[in-house]
Amino acid sequence: MTRYDVAIIGTGPAGLEAAITAKVRNKNIILFGNKDLSNKMQVVDHPILNYLGLPSVTGREMAAAFTKQLEELGIEITEQKVTSVYAMGDFFALQLGDNTMAEADSVILASGVVAGKPYPGEEKFLGRGVSYCATCDAPLYKGKVVAVVGGGPEEEAEADFLGEVCEKVYYLPLYKEEPSFTHDNIIVVREKPAEIKGAMKVNTLATDQNEYEVACVFILRAAQFPGQLVPGLEVEGNAVKVDLQMRTNLPGLFAAGDIAGQPYQYIKAAGQGNTAALSAVNYLAEKNRNK
Amino acid sequence: MTRYDVAIIGTGPAGLEAAITAKVRNKNIILFGNKDLSNKMQVVDHPILNYLGLPSVTGREMAAAFTKQLEELGIEITEQKVTSVYAMGDFFALQLGDNTMAEADSVILASGVVAGKPYPGEEKFLGRGVSYCATCDAPLYKGKVVAVVGGGPEEEAEADFLGEVCEKVYYLPLYKEEPSFTHDNIIVVREKPAEIKGAMKVNTLATDQNEYEVACVFILRAAQFPGQLVPGLEVEGNAVKVDLQMRTNLPGLFAAGDIAGQPYQYIKAAGQGNTAALSAVNYLAEKNRNK
Repeated sequence: MTRYDVAIIGTGPAGLEAAITAKVRNKNIILFGNKDLSNKMQVVDHPILNYLGLPSVTGREMAAAFTKQLEELGIEITEQKVTSVYAMGDFFALQLGDNTMAEADSVILASGVVAGKPYPGEEKFLGRGVSYCATCDAPLYKGKVVAVVGGGPEEEAEADFLGEVCEKVYYLPLYKEEPSFTHDNIIVVREKPAEIKGAMKVNTLATDQNEYEVACVFILRAAQFPGQLVPGLEVEGNAVKVDLQMRTNLPGLFAAGDIAGQPYQYIKAAGQGNTAALSAVNYLAEKNRNK
Repeated sequence: MTRYDVAIIGTGPAGLEAAITAKVRNKNIILFGNKDLSNKMQVVDHPILNYLGLPSVTGREMAAAFTKQLEELGIEITEQKVTSVYAMGDFFALQLGDNTMAEADSVILASGVVAGKPYPGEEKFLGRGVSYCATCDAPLYKGKVVAVVGGGPEEEAEADFLGEVCEKVYYLPLYKEEPSFTHDNIIVVREKPAEIKGAMKVNTLATDQNEYEVACVFILRAAQFPGQLVPGLEVEGNAVKVDLQMRTNLPGLFAAGDIAGQPYQYIKAAGQGNTAALSAVNYLAEKNRNK
């Protein structure tokens, strides 16, 4: 398996700047995210006035400028969700949405801020009936009843796959659009998830109106809470705890942009991505010296 | 006297981004620096590859893009050196190179990093025969012998003014170009300043070769060590000590860019300028609430 120098998670300004800086410093990188870049950027129609160097651009124009720069530097985006990052000692193992793995000597988290907070019971039952990856964990729940909390329409394919494997799937969309599935054992439930309950393992999903007997609750958000993405990572509220060099409490792991706290601004995110990349470069150099 | 909301010192990427962000947030700002922006930027002829949004530009092209953006937002640069910043309690008093003052409720330091370290004796005798402003302190040394350490040719006008007022001026250029003056009591000394000596006040400038009896040593660097610019400011080496919100130990005073530490990168500086400006905006709002 290719061991990358730097794995970068996120294609907002923080992840992109981290990628170009690491690339300019000749590192072997892998960049995870969406080819249409950050969703948040694409929907900004009013001009952004305070990104130094790009006077009065829309989010769409800014994204186009960024894409062009990536192309010029030969940087590709790998369209895979990263569902877990494990610190393995002297490298990191990344579990991907298609149930494959990637390895990297250092990791930069730049996947943005996640609104809200975990559901009651979510953290308690993680790995014991709470999952963030349908493709990875579906085989464990073959012939059983499960629930899926869908953060956006892009999660419907995952739910559909569960419909193929499981006895029944309750699908709770967190969005307004009407979901569509190819399997008719998927039941759309328009209720708000309230609590995940169980004993040793999950046995119930409670909503604001009902209780459902399920063996697993798949929570498919656009991005994960950082503490759940990386076991052992120190967080403060929704933000990863970092120092001025964008170092986290885990050696070799860095964070930049909205995930590292306020203000939520493009140029601040880019600046931190730059610092995180150079800190990763320094970390790799130090690691090589000690070999 | 106009009391500005935010005074910004420095016209590199940190100061410029701070200025546009504070301006977009409707603050009454004053921006001190050079109209040709950061000298460091102007001399970069090789392409800068890792400023997200501006693919492969030279420093000169980047400076041109920044200048255009300032013009669009109606931001002017005040070409004055800030020689001291005093925390007065609930506002800041800025002493300027022409011996006038400016006042502001908050200040952002973005004047870059100063290479080297203070001369032995410099800090000890500050205000007792060591000065950073010829225009301000010349009257104190009328008819006396003084020395000037000149960081660049742009300091020669200040030395010339001292020639007019003082008995004799020793001028020690730290650069290669031949200085020129209109007063012939200015003696160019091609020696390295080594130590500033005295008892209660300065009486001697020692160089690597000689000793000169002087009443004052004027040290005219392009930028000052931050701890000397702002009495009471906490520093670590050549960097101002800041937190992730770019706050210093003095309430209402923020720092961004190279002056706040490594890495010395354009986009990191801009990102920190953005954060510093928004922290200043928050500080002003808090201050108004408590009125």
